[in-house]
This record gives sequence, structure tokens and C-alpha cells, in this order.
Amino acid sequence: MLEITNAQRAEVLTQALPYIQKYNGKIVVVKYGGNAMINDELKQQVMEDVVLLHLIGVKVVLVHGGGPEMTETLKKIGKESVFCDGLRVTDKETAEVALMVLAGKINKNLVNLLQAKGGKAIGISGIDGHMIDCEMKDEKLGYVGKIKKVDVSPVTDLLEQGYIPVVSTVGCDKKGNVYNINADTAAAHIAGEMKASRLITLTDIAGIMKNKDDADSLIRKVDLNDIEDLIAQGVITGGMIPKVECCIDAIKCGVHKVIILDGRVPHAILIETLTDEGAGTMVVSDLKKNAGF
Amino acid sequence: MLEITNAQRAEVLTQALPYIQKYNGKIVVVKYGGNAMINDELKQQVMEDVVLLHLIGVKVVLVHGGGPEMTETLKKIGKESVFCDGLRVTDKETAEVALMVLAGKINKNLVNLLQAKGGKAIGISGIDGHMIDCEMKDEKLGYVGKIKKVDVSPVTDLLEQGYIPVVSTVGCDKKGNVYNINADTAAAHIAGEMKASRLITLTDIAGIMKNKDDADSLIRKVDLNDIEDLIAQGVITGGMIPKVECCIDAIKCGVHKVIILDGRVPHAILIETLTDEGAGTMVVSDLKKNAGF
Amino acid sequence: MLEITNAQRAEVLTQALPYIQKYNGKIVVVKYGGNAMINDELKQQVMEDVVLLHLIGVKVVLVHGGGPEMTETLKKIGKESVFCDGLRVTDKETAEVALMVLAGKINKNLVNLLQAKGGKAIGISGIDGHMIDCEMKDEKLGYVGKIKKVDVSPVTDLLEQGYIPVVSTVGCDKKGNVYNINADTAAAHIAGEMKASRLITLTDIAGIMKNKDDADSLIRKVDLNDIEDLIAQGVITGGMIPKVECCIDAIKCGVHKVIILDGRVPHAILIETLTDEGAGTMVVSDLKKNAGF
Amino acid sequence: MLEITNAQRAEVLTQALPYIQKYNGKIVVVKYGGNAMINDELKQQVMEDVVLLHLIGVKVVLVHGGGPEMTETLKKIGKESVFCDGLRVTDKETAEVALMVLAGKINKNLVNLLQAKGGKAIGISGIDGHMIDCEMKDEKLGYVGKIKKVDVSPVTDLLEQGYIPVVSTVGCDKKGNVYNINADTAAAHIAGEMKASRLITLTDIAGIMKNKDDADSLIRKVDLNDIEDLIAQGVITGGMIPKVECCIDAIKCGVHKVIILDGRVPHAILIETLTDEGAGTMVVSDLKKNAGF
Amino acid sequence: MLEITNAQRAEVLTQALPYIQKYNGKIVVVKYGGNAMINDELKQQVMEDVVLLHLIGVKVVLVHGGGPEMTETLKKIGKESVFCDGLRVTDKETAEVALMVLAGKINKNLVNLLQAKGGKAIGISGIDGHMIDCEMKDEKLGYVGKIKKVDVSPVTDLLEQGYIPVVSTVGCDKKGNVYNINADTAAAHIAGEMKASRLITLTDIAGIMKNKDDADSLIRKVDLNDIEDLIAQGVITGGMIPKVECCIDAIKCGVHKVIILDGRVPHAILIETLTDEGAGTMVVSDLKKNAGF
Amino acid sequence: MLEITNAQRAEVLTQALPYIQKYNGKIVVVKYGGNAMINDELKQQVMEDVVLLHLIGVKVVLVHGGGPEMTETLKKIGKESVFCDGLRVTDKETAEVALMVLAGKINKNLVNLLQAKGGKAIGISGIDGHMIDCEMKDEKLGYVGKIKKVDVSPVTDLLEQGYIPVVSTVGCDKKGNVYNINADTAAAHIAGEMKASRLITLTDIAGIMKNKDDADSLIRKVDLNDIEDLIAQGVITGGMIPKVECCIDAIKCGVHKVIILDGRVPHAILIETLTDEGAGTMVVSDLKKNAGF
Repeated sequence: MLEITNAQRAEVLTQALPYIQKYNGKIVVVKYGGNAMINDELKQQVMEDVVLLHLIGVKVVLVHGGGPEMTETLKKIGKESVFCDGLRVTDKETAEVALMVLAGKINKNLVNLLQAKGGKAIGISGIDGHMIDCEMKDEKLGYVGKIKKVDVSPVTDLLEQGYIPVVSTVGCDKKGNVYNINADTAAAHIAGEMKASRLITLTDIAGIMKNKDDADSLIRKVDLNDIEDLIAQGVITGGMIPKVECCIDAIKCGVHKVIILDGRVPHAILIETLTDEGAGTMVVSDLKKNAGF
Repeated sequence: MLEITNAQRAEVLTQALPYIQKYNGKIVVVKYGGNAMINDELKQQVMEDVVLLHLIGVKVVLVHGGGPEMTETLKKIGKESVFCDGLRVTDKETAEVALMVLAGKINKNLVNLLQAKGGKAIGISGIDGHMIDCEMKDEKLGYVGKIKKVDVSPVTDLLEQGYIPVVSTVGCDKKGNVYNINADTAAAHIAGEMKASRLITLTDIAGIMKNKDDADSLIRKVDLNDIEDLIAQGVITGGMIPKVECCIDAIKCGVHKVIILDGRVPHAILIETLTDEGAGTMVVSDLKKNAGF
Repeated sequence: MLEITNAQRAEVLTQALPYIQKYNGKIVVVKYGGNAMINDELKQQVMEDVVLLHLIGVKVVLVHGGGPEMTETLKKIGKESVFCDGLRVTDKETAEVALMVLAGKINKNLVNLLQAKGGKAIGISGIDGHMIDCEMKDEKLGYVGKIKKVDVSPVTDLLEQGYIPVVSTVGCDKKGNVYNINADTAAAHIAGEMKASRLITLTDIAGIMKNKDDADSLIRKVDLNDIEDLIAQGVITGGMIPKVECCIDAIKCGVHKVIILDGRVPHAILIETLTDEGAGTMVVSDLKKNAGF
Repeated sequence: MLEITNAQRAEVLTQALPYIQKYNGKIVVVKYGGNAMINDELKQQVMEDVVLLHLIGVKVVLVHGGGPEMTETLKKIGKESVFCDGLRVTDKETAEVALMVLAGKINKNLVNLLQAKGGKAIGISGIDGHMIDCEMKDEKLGYVGKIKKVDVSPVTDLLEQGYIPVVSTVGCDKKGNVYNINADTAAAHIAGEMKASRLITLTDIAGIMKNKDDADSLIRKVDLNDIEDLIAQGVITGGMIPKVECCIDAIKCGVHKVIILDGRVPHAILIETLTDEGAGTMVVSDLKKNAGF
Repeated sequence: MLEITNAQRAEVLTQALPYIQKYNGKIVVVKYGGNAMINDELKQQVMEDVVLLHLIGVKVVLVHGGGPEMTETLKKIGKESVFCDGLRVTDKETAEVALMVLAGKINKNLVNLLQAKGGKAIGISGIDGHMIDCEMKDEKLGYVGKIKKVDVSPVTDLLEQGYIPVVSTVGCDKKGNVYNINADTAAAHIAGEMKASRLITLTDIAGIMKNKDDADSLIRKVDLNDIEDLIAQGVITGGMIPKVECCIDAIKCGVHKVIILDGRVPHAILIETLTDEGAGTMVVSDLKKNAGF
Repeated sequence: MLEITNAQRAEVLTQALPYIQKYNGKIVVVKYGGNAMINDELKQQVMEDVVLLHLIGVKVVLVHGGGPEMTETLKKIGKESVFCDGLRVTDKETAEVALMVLAGKINKNLVNLLQAKGGKAIGISGIDGHMIDCEMKDEKLGYVGKIKKVDVSPVTDLLEQGYIPVVSTVGCDKKGNVYNINADTAAAHIAGEMKASRLITLTDIAGIMKNKDDADSLIRKVDLNDIEDLIAQGVITGGMIPKVECCIDAIKCGVHKVIILDGRVPHAILIETLTDEGAGTMVVSDLKKNAGF
């Protein structure tokens, strides 16, 4: 398909050299979701990207949710989903389905796929090692978790032993209750706690756009302090608002840069990290503008 | 409930001293199943036993299946179970339910319970780190796995970092297929590969009995070489035969002793390990009779 | 003697679980003396308690003196003991007897007893590794040591390699002189220097009592700041005063809690640490009241 | 120059994935010489290739000689080169020039170039750590070294600390004499002693060719046992014979495969290692044909 | 006293260079006894020698007995010494005196002296870590120990942490009995178990002499196989026989060379190890004659 | 030559004990140059001194320049040296000669000599590991380096693995240019960056002298603050001024003491470090006067 000579391949590889050096030994948290999780070809490419980053010495952590599959499974078992303020009301049975779908099916399938690409992965959840400690966000919503504390040692322990950690976003409390948690929030907390160099959030849009119908209006880089204005101006709207708020939290917790990345683009992660092409929108903090990588 | 003075408690603790010393630093694989997994009080006690062993320096690994819950979930989603030679025919969808129930629901619930008792646990499956490599046992049965190779490094890596590994018995192959595997077989393979000191199999019977209606006829200790005779004599029958065959395999692979333990007895694991009372039936190899612990 | 079923034993063990977790990895210095050192049955029990704590992951250090045996040996060799202000005047010959009795006979006998219970112990003195650096307290008293500096590295080195350190309380100076030192003081210094979680002082009384003839008047917990009042009120008197002053010093140096424990009670150490029963009197600092363990 | 989109770049990178995995953690010794050492553009590319291999987890060792520059320097200082049987007669002064040119100028320039590409390199010679122990090959030739023993610990020590070792091929004896050694021989000895996965020898020809004037007659793979025939048949001739003999020695010492690689091809090393295209001639041992990597 | 210029001092130091290199990292066990233990000046010199060896990287272990002081202390407490076949009959009380004198007084005094010379020492006995396991040699003799097994891990643990181990030769059995053991035998067992490079035995004679009244008849080096002849010829007689038998045992267990050294010579240890002068008699094994150091 | 008995040798060795202890584990940087680098006997002695210090546990780093040999080689190749303000104008070709002479010939010869004395050395330059980062001091002078930053990790890495690092004083910049740097300055920077205990500078004078024609007027110890006065008074003049300024820089960067040592005295380094005789002039800082070693 790609008619490139081996000489050209070698040249491409050496042109990636400065990028490989830049990311070597750095922590990159990838929040995996949306189309890139549904379309099988895109999924394969994300797996390749993650394994490649891991091999060139990046400490990649893959964090995933799985909304659509949960809905589907709940339907299968004849459990009707009730929503309140746009959030799924989560009773004990629903929380258990979250465990089954997120920590069971999706998590292990991702581990399997990464390993088919040659990676060595271990899938865990926010329950393992009591990693994500939660409480109820709102009693009306049941077991929808608000994160109280994240202890990333299970993730760093796995990285240290050479595994790619794959994290499903369910949490727990001291009494042993299970909570469903928003994957964007969880990824932001984990990246923040790890002081990651990058949090890459795969979404189904090109990034933050001045005019959402004009692909050319993509904002390549936005400062933390300008985001409030963008919301006020109606540039950032709807479901993008909570996503962007997670980015802000992550940066405030110590993540260097957050990328809202178009998961519909093949190998978007590699293009973002190993080429000179910025993909999606990068959120940075004013204070860190000059802080290099 | 238990009217015991603290002076007596102290005495009980010091009487456990030689047993604690004997097990310190040793590997004990617990195959968890049956009644002890269903009855909530027994479940709590198994968790306490495992956490206590872990705390006194035993390297405990908890291996679990989950047959009854799988049947229940399959029923819920309206999938009829087909059996062939007593084994569930496992198509892709059933294998996925195995992932959900075993690697998702049961695995994380066990992790949660261990942690509620103060342990630090991480739950994995045979897919993580490509730990249990499988192939089809019989094409008719679909994704019922025959174990080809076990790589216990994910388990030993977790033990090394101070976690209690909880292993759900699903496996995979190089192509990324998921297999349901018999939990007794998986536990025997893991224990064998780790050269465990003990494989403790929790069951719903008192052990191997000369006369199954007479509790007093329990055989306390049986040699590997005498088991064939016991089968021929009809002492070991039915579902006990494959269980006992797993014990034999484990011992041949290097496990020192295997205990078929009555999971219906409260704290059976502690009684077996930390008191002078042998519980259940111990299977040993002739060659190792004098090999001490 | 103790008619307890194995089921009850298992229950006792699991009830100790939270206490075992609480003490796991913590440093506990036991000052061993008094009746518990003379009565053979009590001695055996202290050894069992220390070995058990060691096995469940507590870093136990056993510190001992040996006043009565010194007197006896001095008598045997026909050396009369001269006292001055209640302290034994210690000439060179007496200091050498201290070496023989404390660092030789008692120290090695304790090591021997701990090992008979399954522990792995090494006995050292304040001279080894120049651990306890002394000067004369008062020229009139001769080689009665006032501690100038404690370097606990020999103790931590032994703990790190898995031994139970047994420390006899003789010290030295740079010129090579040998000093006899008060065991309570030495234990307090060692515990303080190690920032121990607990200093447990075995004595021959029930603890600090409001009315020393009324066992029920035992003060379970006393704050550092209230001790002066208790001395002023005559509640703490006589030989108890210097003991309590050592406790104060230890807490000021960083020990979390000090327990004055009745060594005449069988397994007093285990009762104190692994049951809900407070034994003896606990001395705490106001500032640490809420500091948890 | 290369009109390739970033999407294509990403695809090229992921296509390199299986090769990267294959070489990860392996030892590759590169014998650097010939045109690739003279032509500046080729030199830059070799440096890029080495740094890239290092970054993707290959343990690369760069071994170099420097014949032409030696001749030039000798000429500059007015020292005439005398040859005997095609080898330069090496008196003390000539040996010192070898030190200056090889261990000084060329070695440090290579370190400098690797570092300009982002690598972290340390340049040593066979004298450092008494790595290459020599004796005279032939008295007539003076200080032309015959290798008696190679101690690769300086190289492995540097690899362990994350440096790219650059080795200049001068040796020494116990009396402190300095020897000039053939770079092919030295590289073969070092690779053999390290049990390297690959020894890559950069030369100025396409490889072993059936007909040296016909590029299409290149022999892609040749077995150790067939080489003698090829020499007898006049296929391998002249300066190629000693080169090939070094390959044989290396394989006999434990190197898995030796590649005679055309250093005139840009990025020949990357093409050989990270693409499906075999470049040059691979020498393997019959015994290892099926031994995988 | 010694009129040597600093220039000469420097020369002496550099002349010691090859000897320092030879002993660097090697294990040397010094059996300390006889005159060198009684004469105060010689004692100081032995301490200096041991500390110097330790500082230049030798792993020195000091093993001591203390016969004369034991006799003296027994006399002091009015206990009459009974001998049987030349060995002291050792009842429980005598064994306890051994503890006091050897493990208490002498051991700690040696530690003190080494530390006064700048060493960092820890004194232990054969009881610590259950290092020397004994049984009765002969019931008539009481607690005179015959060594059953030596576990040198306490000694190697202390060496590893940078201490000079000082070992007093009392042993124990599993029941907690204390045994007095011959120091030569103990030193030979320890050196053998450690595969020491040297066992140096300090005695009160010049070495093995052909004619014991003629200092010039000293045998500098003797082979294991020739010793029997020397005993038959009456060259080795009396108390020298058991000493030499210990040497033989040590060499058979793996000690490279044993030196019977004249402890009456100032700094005999340094002269033996760091100069070209052989002091005393070296016992070697034929098989090892050519085995270098 | 030296008529000293072995008994005296032993005494000399033990008298060095306190000095050996003082220097054990400390960092000593030796700036090697002048006569001691030209006279062969003195050279051998410096090598012995360095190897001996290394063996007794000192972390010695040997830093060298090589002015006279550079001039000689430049002359040989017919390159005329141009000087400007007393500094050699260094064009590209001259910088390359610096590489050849310093990093090639001299560096490897020193490594060779140290190894002939039994040391294990590795020679590196300021280019290796990009250790000495430079820029031009003055455009007129060409590649005469002004040190911008020193990264001593190559030196500490080598020390950690037991090698004696030998450093030739050429530097580099990010573009790959090579710089010739003043050896005194480089040694001061390296010692300062390492917070060395001692910087020993070998020179051809006795030290700082009040009257340079009167050997007895040597100033044994001088404070940092008094040096300016000494320059003003004309006591420190000419080439001594930049040397002394390097000393000041080193001390300001954290070196404890700097010694200007007479390299013409045999074994001057050992006399300075291991005897009571101060050799040369010691420069100290007022603030550190009481800071002990």
C-alpha cells in the first residue's frame, strides 16, 4: 500500500530520532476512548502506537472507560439505564456490570491486543491496590464515584517491572463499594499524580475549533488562562467543557502538557509525539510556556 | 461470642509460633472455589486467612474460577449453556462472558474483600503478561483451553512488590483468542511452575473418604502411588477424579504437598497451616516423604 | 492445659489481624528486666513474645541490664559492692565484671533462648561498633556511664539482615574505658535515636497507680505534661521516678508511645501489642495524641 | 527532500515495530571503517543509525580503526611507512602515532559526532582497563599486535551505565608496550567475547558476490562451511579473505550472525536491522540455522 | 624511635603495593592467642595489623580463645579446674564462666582495642546466629564441644556491612547448652567454611623447626603430605600436633594456605602479608602448589 | 638501596594507619603536570602514589594536560605556534593536535603506566559523555576553551565501577567543536563539581614562598582571604597567579583544601597524604579552618 523504499524508511526512522530522544524516559498517559475504541482498524493502530512508544523508552499508561459497551451489556441483561443530569444512575447491579464490562471484557481485550503487537501488558482497575479511592458524587446518582485520592503505586510498580499498565476506571471505598468513574477525570487524576509529561486524550473531534464546522479553524495551542474566555465566547461548548476542565485539573496537578487528540486520525499518537506535526489542541500553562518539554 | 481471655489469646498466638516459622517465606497457592466462595461468612473467613498468611510472611497466591456465577450471567443475557461430555461448549460470546464474570466481577470483588481485611492485592488473569498460554482442548468444545505453557513471572513480580496476587483462570493464545480454563488445572499448573510448598484446594467435601457417608473414614494422608488403587477400588469417584489428577500433576511438577481441604469448615486454611490439626486429605509423593517440609 | 479447639485458635489468630497490621514494619524496643528476667517461666514467655513479634514483621530490639546477677558474681569473686547515692561505685574491676555478666553470660543466654524459640539473634553491647559513647557521670562513682551519644547503626544493620538484636548495656569512651550504664536510660536513648514506635519497659509493678495498693487504680494512659503533677502529688515515687523520666526522654527524642508494662503477667508483651487490652501504663505526648499509631 | 506525509511516517515507524522488538536488549557490534568513515554524509548517517539503535534498546558497540588517517599523519611528521607482507612495520614511534590518531583524534571525533546526534558516548581503547592484551605477531613487524586475550568488562561496564562505547583498536601488553591491531580482528574478538547477536562489518563492497562485476550476483546468506569452497573457487579473494576469516572466528566464538555490509549505502545499518531487506552478505553457522535470532 | 625520613616512609609504602594488591578483597582468618594476647605491646601491634589489613581491603576475621584468663577467673570464684586427658572438664558452671570470660570480657576488650586503632568491629560468639553447632566430644569432659556444623553467615553479614568480626569460641546446641571449644579448631572450621585465602595462627614458637633449639632450622614451607612424616620423625611433637592437624583440616576444607606464625615477633602479621619475608611456617597442599595465591 | 628491616617496614605501615583512615572513601583530584610528567623516575613514582591511594580506598582522579608535548608535535608536523597574550592561538588543526597528543598519546600512556603498577584505569577526555562544555574564551584565540559547565558523571560512573579515571583536558561544545583547555582550570572545575576533599596540584616549585630564593621561606598554609594581599605584596607573581586563582575557585566551589605540591620531590603525594609532613602550600578557606578534614 505504502510505496516507500527501504532507504526512505531508514530516513524516516532517523528523522524521528530527536523526538524519540525527547520522549525517552518520560511518562505519557493516554486516555483511550471514542471512535478509536470502536473502529477496529483505528484500535489496532492505537495499540501499535502504544507498543512503539513503550519500546522506545516511554513510560506509557493506557487509561480506558467504555460507555457504549456498558449500555449494550445493561440492555442485554434487561437492565434499563436511568439518567439524571446526563449521568447514569448507578445502583449496585449497574456497578457490578461496570466491573464486568470495564475491568473484565474491555480491559483484558486491550491487554490481549497490546500483547498481539508484541507488548507486555498487565490490566488493572482502580480497585487493585486500592488505587482510586472514591465517595459518592451525589446520593441520587448512586455509585457514581467522585475521586478522593489516587495512589499510583500499582501503576508505577508495573512500569518499573517493564509492563504497560492498562487501567480500567472503576474505583472503590474503604467499605468495599464499587464505583463507576468518568474516564477523563480518572486519567487526569492519574496523570497529575504521576506528574506526567503528557496526557493525551483521544476524542472524536479534531480538537478545539474556533468554528466547529471549519477544520481550518483548529486552535493548535491554548493557554490555561484563556480557556475561561473560550467557554464564555461559546467556542468551547457542550461535552467539550468537562473534558477541558479535566485538562485544566491535570495541568494544575503537575502534568506538563495535555493534548486533545483526534482519535479518528490513523496513528494520531505517533504523529503527535514523533513528528513535527502538532495534531489536535495542546493545552499548556502560561507558567510553563518556557519550561521546555 | 468466643469467651477467651487475652491471656489465653496470647497463649494461642505463641502456640502458633512453630507453624508460622515453618511457613515463613514459603509459597502457598490457594485454589478458591465451591461453597467457600458462595457462603458470605465463609468467604470473609477465607479472606482473613489469606491476609493473615500474607502478613506472617507467606507468599500466598489466590487462584479462582467461578462456574456458578458464569451460568447465572449467561442465563441473564439469555444465552443457553450447551454441554458436551460435561464441559460447557464455549463460543466467542461465552468466552467473553468468562472474561466479564471471572476477570471482572469475581476477581475485583475478591481484591476488594482482601483489601477490606487490610491486605494489598492486585487481581490479574491468565491473559495479563500472557501468563497462561492455551490451545483448544477439543474443537467441539470451542474456547475451552488446554494449557500449553504457564509463565508465572506476573505472579512473582507482584509477590516481590508485596501484593497478594489474585488470579482468574482465563487464558489466551498468540492470536488473541480468549479461553475459559478449569480452575483446578490452572491452579495446579501455577503451583507446579512456582515449585510451591503447598497447593491448597478448597472443596465442598471433607477430603478423600474411605466411605463417603462416614466422616470418620477420612484419609488424612495419601501417597501419589496409592491413588490409582483408590480409584480402582471406587474410593475416589466422579468429580473427585479430575481434582485428584490435578493434585498428582502439581506434585509431579514440584509442589511439595497438596491439600484437599474442606472449604465448609470456618478458617480451614488457618487450621491446616497454623495448628497441629490436619484438615482434609494431604497428597504427598513417596519420594518426598522424608524430605521434611 | 488450655482447652481451646482449633476452630477457636483460628478465630483468635484472625482477631489479631488488625494488630498485626498495625505493628507490621514498626520498630519496638523492649527493655527487659526485673522479675520477667528471673522467673524462668516468664523468661520463656518473653522470648516467645519477642520471636513472634519478629516473625510478624515487627523490628524488635531487646535491651537488657542485669543488676542482680552482677551483685551475685561480684560476691562470688569476693568483691564488695560499695554504693554511693544508690549507685554502685564502679572501679575498673567492677566494670570488667559488668562486661562478663552483661555482655557475656546474660547476653548470650538470651540469644540462646530466643534461638531455642526459633528466632535468629545476635547479641551485641554498647561497645560493639562504638554504639554507646559514654563519659563519667560523677568521678566519685567511677565507671558509671553517662551517655554522650548513641550510634544505632549496629542495631539497624542487624535488623536489616534479619537478626533480632540483643543489646547489653555497657558503654565505652574513645580511650577504651568500659562503663556500666543504667539499662532504662540506655533503652530510652536507643529507642529515641531509632524513632521507635514503641518503647516497652518491663517492670515488676502493674504500672502507674493512683493508689499503689489498689490494682484497680492503675492509670491506663498518662500525658507527658501531667507527669510532673503526678510526681508532685506523690503518685509517682521512689524508683519509679527515674523510670518515668526515661520515658519522658524517649518520647521527647521521637518515640511515639512508651509502655510501662507489668512483666509479671504472662505474655504481657503480646497482650499489649496484639489484643485490645491495654496492659500497664502508656505514656504519650500531648502533641501526638491525635497522630495515630 | 523526502516527500512523505506524517501519516506515512507513522506507518513506517509502526512497520519497524517487529524489528525493534527483535533487537531490543541485544548486543550489536559495529566494525566501522572504509568509505563510510571518510565520506562525511555517510558518516553522519552511521552516527544516526548507531544512536537510533541505542535509543530503541540495542546495546551497540562501535569499533573503529583508521588506516588512511594514520598514513596521512605519518606522512605529515615525515615518517616513512615501511610495509612487510602487506602489513605496516610498526616501530615505537609508529605505535605512538597509532595512539594519537586512533585513540585520540578519530575516537574523540566519533564520540563527538554521536553526541551531536543526541547519544551519550564514551571512547576507550584496548589499553583502557587492559582490555586487549597483545603480543607481537611477528618480530619483523614490530608492534603489530596479535590478540592474546580480550577482557570486555570496560565495554560492558559502560553499556550498563547507558553509554555507547566507542573502541579504538590499539592494544597493550603487561610491560606497557602499545600495539597497533587490525580493526576487523579486534571487532571479531570483542563481538565473540560478548556473545553478540550481530557483528556488522562496514566495507566498501556490496558483500560477497559470485561475480564481482555483477551486483545481482550478491550472495545474501552463506554458511560457515561453504566459505572454504568459495575461497577455493576464487569467489572470495584478496582483502576479502582475512575479513571473512574474522567473521568465521567471531561465529565460532559465539556471535549469532555476522553481516558484511555495504557501507556506501546510506543508512545501511538501519536497513539491515529494521527493515525486511537484507543488505550485504550474512554469514551464519549451520548449527545455528534453526536457532532463531 | 625509628629514624626514618618521610621520603623513606613513602618508599616503604609503595614497596608494599604488590602485596596490598595481592590481598585486596581476600579473606584472612587470624587465630589470636598465646603471648601476643598477654603481652600488652604485642597486643596493640596485632590490633594495628588487623585494622590496617581491614583498611586496605582485606576481609579479616579475628578468632580468639582465652585459656589463661579462664583459669584465673575460675580460681577467683573458687572453682577448681579438673583436667582429663589434658582437657578441662567443663560442667555447666564452667561453661558459664567461658561465656563470661570469652564472649564477655576478652571479646569486648578486643573490640574496644580495634576501635581505639580506628577499626569498626563487632564481637560475636559461636552462639550468635547459632553459628557454631556443637555436641559433646566425650561425656566425661562435659560441655567441651565437638563442632558439628558451622554457619558462617553472621561473620559474612558483618563483613559485608564493613565491620571487623571478632569471634569468641563458645558454641551451642539446639537445646541451648553452651560449649567451650578449642580455638584452633574453631578458627580452622570458620576459615575452611569461608574458603579463606589465609588462616594465620599466632603461636609462641617460631614455626615448625627441624631442631627446636636451632632457630635457623625453621621449615619455611611444608606440604600437607609431608606432615605425617614429620610427626613420625619426631619433628612435630606435643602441643604442636593438634595445631598442625587443625591446619590440615582447614586446607582440606578449602583454605588456600595456613601460616603458623610467631606471635612474639612485633607486627608478625604485617611482615607475613605485606613484605617479602616469610614469617613462620606455611602449610600448603600439593595440589595447590601451582594454584597461585 | 633503602636499608630498612621488615620490622621497620611494618612499623612504617602502621604509622600510616591514621592517615589511611582519614583519606578512606574521600575524593582526591590530582592535577598532574610539570617536571613530574617529564622526568621518568618521578612519573613512575606519581603512578605508584596514585595506585596506592586508590587501593587504600581513596577515590583518586588524575587530570592531566601536556603543553610541552603539544609544542613538540606541532613542530614535528611543521605547524608554527602563534601566541597571543601568552596563550596559544588554536585553530581547527591545532585543536586536532590537542586531541591527538592529550586524549591519545599522553592519556593512554598514563593509563598504561597506572596499570603496570597494578591499577585498573580508564582514560577519558572532556568530550566523553560531553563532560566539559566549552565556549570560546576570546575569538582571537580560536578554540581555546572557556568552561561553561562540567558534568562529572562520567568520572563518578568510572569511580563507582572501580576504575581510576584519567582525564585529558580537551572540551567540546554542542556543535561538536573541540577546545583546548587549561589543565589547572579544568582540574579545579572537576574537583569543585565533585566537592573533592583535596585538589593536589603538582608544580615545579616548592610552593608559595615569601622569598622565592629561600626554600625555608615556604608558606605552609595560607588562607583564601590573605591571597590578594600576597599578590599585592608581590609574593605571588607571574605564572603562579593563575594557578592560585584556580585554587581559589576550587575552594569556593566546595573543595575542602587545595595543595600546591612540589612535583620534583619523589613520592610527594604520599608524603603529603600519608605522613605528618606537610609538603608544599595548603590553601584553605577561613570558614573551613575548623571544619576538620
